[in-house]
Amino acid sequence: MSNYKLLSENELNSILENLRSQYNDVKSKNLKLDMSRGKPCTQQLDLSIDMMNVLNTAEDYMTEDGTDSRNYGILEGIPEARKLVGDMIGVDPSLVIVGVNSSLNIMYDTVSKAMLNGICGNTPWVKQGKIKFLCPVPGYDRHFAISEHFGIEMINVQMNEDGPDMDTIEKLVSSDSSIKGIWCVPKYSNPTGNTYSDEVVRRFAALKPAADDFRIFWDNAYCVHDLTDTPDSLLNILDECKKAGNENLVYIFSSTSKISFPGAGIAAMAASKENIDWIKKSLAYQTIGSDKINQLRHVRFFKDINGIKEHMKKHAAIIKPKFDAVLEIFDEELSDAGIATWTKPNGGYFISFDTMEGCAKRVYNLCKEAGVVLTPAGASYPYGIDPEDKNIRVAPTFPTIDDLKTATHLFCLCVKIASIEKILGK
Amino acid sequence: MSNYKLLSENELNSILENLRSQYNDVKSKNLKLDMSRGKPCTQQLDLSIDMMNVLNTAEDYMTEDGTDSRNYGILEGIPEARKLVGDMIGVDPSLVIVGVNSSLNIMYDTVSKAMLNGICGNTPWVKQGKIKFLCPVPGYDRHFAISEHFGIEMINVQMNEDGPDMDTIEKLVSSDSSIKGIWCVPKYSNPTGNTYSDEVVRRFAALKPAADDFRIFWDNAYCVHDLTDTPDSLLNILDECKKAGNENLVYIFSSTSKISFPGAGIAAMAASKENIDWIKKSLAYQTIGSDKINQLRHVRFFKDINGIKEHMKKHAAIIKPKFDAVLEIFDEELSDAGIATWTKPNGGYFISFDTMEGCAKRVYNLCKEAGVVLTPAGASYPYGIDPEDKNIRVAPTFPTIDDLKTATHLFCLCVKIASIEKILGK
Repeated sequence: MSNYKLLSENELNSILENLRSQYNDVKSKNLKLDMSRGKPCTQQLDLSIDMMNVLNTAEDYMTEDGTDSRNYGILEGIPEARKLVGDMIGVDPSLVIVGVNSSLNIMYDTVSKAMLNGICGNTPWVKQGKIKFLCPVPGYDRHFAISEHFGIEMINVQMNEDGPDMDTIEKLVSSDSSIKGIWCVPKYSNPTGNTYSDEVVRRFAALKPAADDFRIFWDNAYCVHDLTDTPDSLLNILDECKKAGNENLVYIFSSTSKISFPGAGIAAMAASKENIDWIKKSLAYQTIGSDKINQLRHVRFFKDINGIKEHMKKHAAIIKPKFDAVLEIFDEELSDAGIATWTKPNGGYFISFDTMEGCAKRVYNLCKEAGVVLTPAGASYPYGIDPEDKNIRVAPTFPTIDDLKTATHLFCLCVKIASIEKILGK
Repeated sequence: MSNYKLLSENELNSILENLRSQYNDVKSKNLKLDMSRGKPCTQQLDLSIDMMNVLNTAEDYMTEDGTDSRNYGILEGIPEARKLVGDMIGVDPSLVIVGVNSSLNIMYDTVSKAMLNGICGNTPWVKQGKIKFLCPVPGYDRHFAISEHFGIEMINVQMNEDGPDMDTIEKLVSSDSSIKGIWCVPKYSNPTGNTYSDEVVRRFAALKPAADDFRIFWDNAYCVHDLTDTPDSLLNILDECKKAGNENLVYIFSSTSKISFPGAGIAAMAASKENIDWIKKSLAYQTIGSDKINQLRHVRFFKDINGIKEHMKKHAAIIKPKFDAVLEIFDEELSDAGIATWTKPNGGYFISFDTMEGCAKRVYNLCKEAGVVLTPAGASYPYGIDPEDKNIRVAPTFPTIDDLKTATHLFCLCVKIASIEKILGK
């Protein structure tokens, strides 16, 4: 295969005709495949099923401080769960709140509370006029959706291999007091799979925001979600913030959604003492406490951070071959054509795929018409608008390997068709 | 024993001296008893422990519509859990959202969303200036705390035996568009234990609020929490609202917190289709779904509404003797003295006790000094202010019978002391 951009119009037309014929063949098979969301597959869920058998007698329900986990109380989560999550994200348990069943919900609540109550005594955001968030792109659609829902204006910042463009962030954050936050997935970023470099983390920790109530929303969703024996490592942002005299700058979020069970895991928030004390104040109006039985179930099953790490190796053994299958097909089918680039992550749940400019929506639609559902083109950008219409998030974990291969071959076919159409101006 | 108010000063002084001597005896025992919160006792929690053994093989986790409850999805809860809770509160499953682990959290969220997003297309409350809620008193402290937290002004409405004073409510709600809600615990009300009469429910359903975004917050927390064979019955508010052409008027809340496990139960909200559709819109930004495994666990354990009803009889067998013990002691020690009144509920978690005017705080403090913790006097009123300083909420479920008897005897002693002090102007 040659680089498409070096071929003549005749050559391209002839290739296109052939591709379309292949496409119609696939279409006639009435596929029904889904590569749209970062969902664990059934075998991954089975890994944690023994968690349901760790609590049996009434005594089993007692926490280490003697509380009956079946009754009311303990706003910030049971001590052993705070320790387990704290070890996972590198934060002292006293600074961790284990909350509801998903970190998305905790992030939504955190923004909602900032809107209505403000942050650490500052004026509520809702009374400050226009509020803005910085959004490294491509990024996580549900982060952007929260901002949009609350009427927060979003500003795109370029995501590079070592993290977001810090020059732009430093300039904007230090000069505009209406910028109140930035959404970050610092390790195995959604969707690029890249991890922030030490330098990027240090520059984050050293930010001098114009707004006292600016916070980094550090969604460490994939902190232990390594796929290889040479995983990425992420600097501890809270430690760095402390060193920089900036310890109130960051909110850290995480969960076991993709460790145990999505929706039935435990989720948490961590931050400086001042931040946590402030959050707990309003949390006390919202709830008497979260599901302590489920917290205890997690602790008894995983035991400690080493238990989680061992468990994640089992996840990797299931999903690494899926990532490999997709990447091999991309290599085989697309590496010579010069029409696309993609990431090769060491962890997380996604591969980020860039078509030629202006082709992503067309690829999405071609796939859809042939029965393969992708994350909608543009979803990784605020307001669903990818200015270059080129990014597609590929989620390899949920389908079987066979389905995944079928879907990926079709995907490559669609990328080729859309690219030639683009080159030919059709 | 005679009516204290008919005794001479000398007689009262002599009684007081004797009571104080008894009080000092009790005090020297260094009691440490808690009658402050409506918590189930350990034996009640043990009733549901087999719920933890109903999900075993991977197949057990499939919902009736074929969804794997262990994975992402189903914003409004699994169909069989919506049916179970729907049957409990008398609402069609399609109008029920099963959400996070406590109804308190759902109520907080509902107010928070109304503040920021408004209700069914109306202007967000936060942009409407001063907002007010009506609060039947005495009532549930955590309801009032939510209002206070969001800066919502609270207006007391007298709670009678058949429900709140509807004349006042009708007048206020129809004339003041800044009144946006009312907190109700319609069955076995917290703390009075009274149930709203059919007429009161119908008058609620027929309200003609000045504000389009006025809602009745109908916290049906004790819907199946009967203590006797002749339980109270509550008219179905949603049906009555529909009949009155007012179906958007009410939000219903409930949970299994005091059926299965506090904090590890399932909680729900129900309302008209228009209300539910509106709530679901913003819920979709907050979460991908709640803990479906726990929902399924509840359905498999209780099976259906009859399973819940049978289960509640077991709760009653444990806690009815506790209510009886307290009421017997009140009768023995206080019925002749003419210094207090109290409720004799057919269900729920509380007995509401009224001292003579101006005595409740004194009783609370006397009890506390002798090692018995009560719900703080005033807690059942907005801002913690009981205008007559007479109401005390008694929570008999958590202590053992023996502890409860000891605590109740002390309580009666303190009531007598405070009353005589009051009569004598000491």
